[in-house]
Amino acid sequence: MRKSVPLLGAFLLAGAAAALECAEAARSRTKEATDQTQLDDLVVANRILSDQGVVDGFGHVSARHEADATRFLLARSMAPGLVTADDIMEFDLDGSALDPRGRTLYVERFIHSEIYKAHPEIKAIVHSHSPSIIPFGTTSVPLRPIYHMSSFLGAGVPIFEIREAGSLATDMLIRDPELGAALARRLGKSAVVLMRGHGDVVVGESIKQVVFRAIYTEINAKLQAEALRLGEGDFDQQCGPRPPLGSVEAAGARTTLSNSRRRNVSTTAVKWPAAPRSSPSSQF
Amino acid sequence: MRKSVPLLGAFLLAGAAAALECAEAARSRTKEATDQTQLDDLVVANRILSDQGVVDGFGHVSARHEADATRFLLARSMAPGLVTADDIMEFDLDGSALDPRGRTLYVERFIHSEIYKAHPEIKAIVHSHSPSIIPFGTTSVPLRPIYHMSSFLGAGVPIFEIREAGSLATDMLIRDPELGAALARRLGKSAVVLMRGHGDVVVGESIKQVVFRAIYTEINAKLQAEALRLGEGDFDQQCGPRPPLGSVEAAGARTTLSNSRRRNVSTTAVKWPAAPRSSPSSQF
Amino acid sequence: MRKSVPLLGAFLLAGAAAALECAEAARSRTKEATDQTQLDDLVVANRILSDQGVVDGFGHVSARHEADATRFLLARSMAPGLVTADDIMEFDLDGSALDPRGRTLYVERFIHSEIYKAHPEIKAIVHSHSPSIIPFGTTSVPLRPIYHMSSFLGAGVPIFEIREAGSLATDMLIRDPELGAALARRLGKSAVVLMRGHGDVVVGESIKQVVFRAIYTEINAKLQAEALRLGEGDFDQQCGPRPPLGSVEAAGARTTLSNSRRRNVSTTAVKWPAAPRSSPSSQF
Amino acid sequence: MRKSVPLLGAFLLAGAAAALECAEAARSRTKEATDQTQLDDLVVANRILSDQGVVDGFGHVSARHEADATRFLLARSMAPGLVTADDIMEFDLDGSALDPRGRTLYVERFIHSEIYKAHPEIKAIVHSHSPSIIPFGTTSVPLRPIYHMSSFLGAGVPIFEIREAGSLATDMLIRDPELGAALARRLGKSAVVLMRGHGDVVVGESIKQVVFRAIYTEINAKLQAEALRLGEGDFDQQCGPRPPLGSVEAAGARTTLSNSRRRNVSTTAVKWPAAPRSSPSSQF
Repeated sequence: MRKSVPLLGAFLLAGAAAALECAEAARSRTKEATDQTQLDDLVVANRILSDQGVVDGFGHVSARHEADATRFLLARSMAPGLVTADDIMEFDLDGSALDPRGRTLYVERFIHSEIYKAHPEIKAIVHSHSPSIIPFGTTSVPLRPIYHMSSFLGAGVPIFEIREAGSLATDMLIRDPELGAALARRLGKSAVVLMRGHGDVVVGESIKQVVFRAIYTEINAKLQAEALRLGEGDFDQQCGPRPPLGSVEAAGARTTLSNSRRRNVSTTAVKWPAAPRSSPSSQF
Repeated sequence: MRKSVPLLGAFLLAGAAAALECAEAARSRTKEATDQTQLDDLVVANRILSDQGVVDGFGHVSARHEADATRFLLARSMAPGLVTADDIMEFDLDGSALDPRGRTLYVERFIHSEIYKAHPEIKAIVHSHSPSIIPFGTTSVPLRPIYHMSSFLGAGVPIFEIREAGSLATDMLIRDPELGAALARRLGKSAVVLMRGHGDVVVGESIKQVVFRAIYTEINAKLQAEALRLGEGDFDQQCGPRPPLGSVEAAGARTTLSNSRRRNVSTTAVKWPAAPRSSPSSQF
Repeated sequence: MRKSVPLLGAFLLAGAAAALECAEAARSRTKEATDQTQLDDLVVANRILSDQGVVDGFGHVSARHEADATRFLLARSMAPGLVTADDIMEFDLDGSALDPRGRTLYVERFIHSEIYKAHPEIKAIVHSHSPSIIPFGTTSVPLRPIYHMSSFLGAGVPIFEIREAGSLATDMLIRDPELGAALARRLGKSAVVLMRGHGDVVVGESIKQVVFRAIYTEINAKLQAEALRLGEGDFDQQCGPRPPLGSVEAAGARTTLSNSRRRNVSTTAVKWPAAPRSSPSSQF
Repeated sequence: MRKSVPLLGAFLLAGAAAALECAEAARSRTKEATDQTQLDDLVVANRILSDQGVVDGFGHVSARHEADATRFLLARSMAPGLVTADDIMEFDLDGSALDPRGRTLYVERFIHSEIYKAHPEIKAIVHSHSPSIIPFGTTSVPLRPIYHMSSFLGAGVPIFEIREAGSLATDMLIRDPELGAALARRLGKSAVVLMRGHGDVVVGESIKQVVFRAIYTEINAKLQAEALRLGEGDFDQQCGPRPPLGSVEAAGARTTLSNSRRRNVSTTAVKWPAAPRSSPSSQF
């Protein structure tokens, strides 16, 4: 993340050069400070998603670079629950690491690069095998918002079918830009897209929003499955005797959540602790 | 919570004034000590409800002020699991903070203010998105006590329909006194009211009772759903071959729980530890 | 637990008396050491059952006194997860505390006294609201062993119906010796008896065995419910295409478990750690 | 694990003998270092499987000895969550301990010895009562991969019927080489074999792979049961509207996982911490 201070040329006097260098360094420090906040948020996002069971040893979360919309931040290939700031790398929108350092990369980084390329308004992305959503990706039962906390599902949750985008003989992974682009198209304007036999992708306008959405997508899937088993709900009707959430209600709740996010999601939505600067000690 | 010592006027001698001030301060300290106990109980209630999964980053618990029935205590807008005594504020029965200090308030504080206004016997209230009750709020399957621990559900569990109280275009939140009053009416004499597509409200005669009830409402919903799936229980009959709890039995168990609460709920119902005086350190 | 050293009479010389007292004290210490092991095991049993979710703030576990079959050990009324050796009391088979010290007692101690009275071979008893067994107590679906770990269920699991033993207007609690005696009769030679709308009782020949059984009764109920939902198992047939456990197999596995218990249950069945000598610090 | 340095005979000069001894010791140290890595991995495997709920107080994991394919490593009879390097023992392919030291052995060590004997390519084995797979072992519903993480199930999951291999009157345990050999035959080329009324066996080409597979077998069973309850998936069709994973896809994903395992499973699959060298302190 460190940017080198640009060379200032030999025609400047040493004193003036020093002053300018100081100013540059200050600007650079400011920029770095901003970067550091985003880095820290991304580290914490990894930890929270792991803590909440949205990701296990697999899955990843990225953020579009705040200072450069053509880049995004993503950890090197590792378990999200162990990510520290040193593990975060920068990628361009082709999914290439700017400074690879020989590190192993997530095979599926094209999920991120192609969605950022296709959807300028999206600033953060989670890909996971969120357990409760897996059954919805392999059946014909649509995922619908059961309460206001998951009203962002009200715009519909498409299912990505890799056999339509690729061939009948994939290994299910989004391992090239073409598959990533097909996934980005299937996502459309939704907040979530399910991937058959694989997992899902959740998108948002900020790291905190996408963490919030990934957590409540998991909870919604779990609770909707419970409600369907009770046997008398109707998740497709908007005006039956007991719909979980009407479409107008979902839109209203979505707007409220969205505004709320901007104000105080850091205190009310989830605990957003300080980012760890070093790896946690072994749990065993 | 601190009450200022009243001015005593200039006509008193300094010595007498000092003595009187001491007496006032002692009385005030006694009152503050009482307040402090209630404050601590409310802090612990927040922590226990978070620990037990009744609330997550959202949800709130309040108590009617012990010394003034026209006021109630509620945290500023924040995650319950992080609440400390400093975060607790006083509100009047219109839902206005007595000393707002520019803090963000729970939008839905009118749940509390209107229920306290309508039901003088209620001393404590929990509002949550308690996971297992959500499916019962969106189907026609009534929540019924499956065992004596949740016998307080025996008086019936109404469902609040916000479309009847408000409009078809709410954001599902109880964001004004009118919606709060409608919810208080729907609650009636029950211990719990479900809110379609949203959550529930649990009420009690003390902080400890409402915590107990909120926990066992969650457990009951989970176990009743399990029993319904086994397929041979009959939760509507009182005298079938295997009813979970007859209505007379529920009433008996309710009385027992209620008496038990007054005696030793602090040791037998739930662990009621000392209240934290400062925020917990990060879990990551 | 402390036994006073018996008076030896004035006709003995002081020196001889002292020697005898020493011998008595030594015997007493030996006996106390034995007692202490049983006490510690009972404390650990409380903690393990709490840790494993068999009991929450309610429920209790007792042991017949090793040195006196007409007495049993049980904690004062409190949450099992907080029990220490100081909380354990001695009771006779009428359910009376030998040294009450004004402590609050479990209302349902007659579960223990009457079962110990009726069944001399039983040495330890757990009463709980073990969550997964609650639905089996309120439906007509019989609890059956799904695997060898719960083969002790193979002798059948009766359901206790308090309306037959008492009246239609109980509070569901076993609050007197008559109800306790009826429950002991219903238990018969089984290892477990379910109580409609309440919980269950698990019995064993040692503290470690009853803890083992209580844990695997809970697990069995959970897994059997899962298997029934898959829809093709047959828990009543012994020789269908896929019975969970045949009756001869259950008997064989039961014998193995029983022998295994005597050998090394402390290392293989559950972790059996050192008993806490003081209360744990607050978890908040 | 320590190998004694071979005697070198009296005809060598002391100096030469010393030099040779040094060389021997160095070779031995190298070998021991290798052994130590495998030992540590096996200890960690025990802890992870316990932490992830695949094993509880019962269950075991073994590894074929890296330096001698006719031996395997397995703990003495104890709870996996407590295993340290000192508890690991060496066994031959008849299931006999090379250095028994009077320790209690797992009755079912013949699961390991016979599978290693029959299947040279298998390097590591887990036997457990993994909770979510138990219902699949007692019904006719086949376990199938629901997503790419469990694609190793795509080769089919046979069920071992002990009544066919032994008699109608077993205690369900694999307590002799004959039952072990029958189980090894039933396993065939699959990664997992279910055991009716008992548990399962998972095999792999390395300790890390078998841990990975055991964890995702448990998760797959849980999620497949959820999907079946949603009611519209078709786990037997390969080309229906929404199959969880086609057979070609499963093969592709299996290959990817297998390659991935060789590269970086230690960082992306599960947390693989340093092995504990001493027992953990009590959790109570």
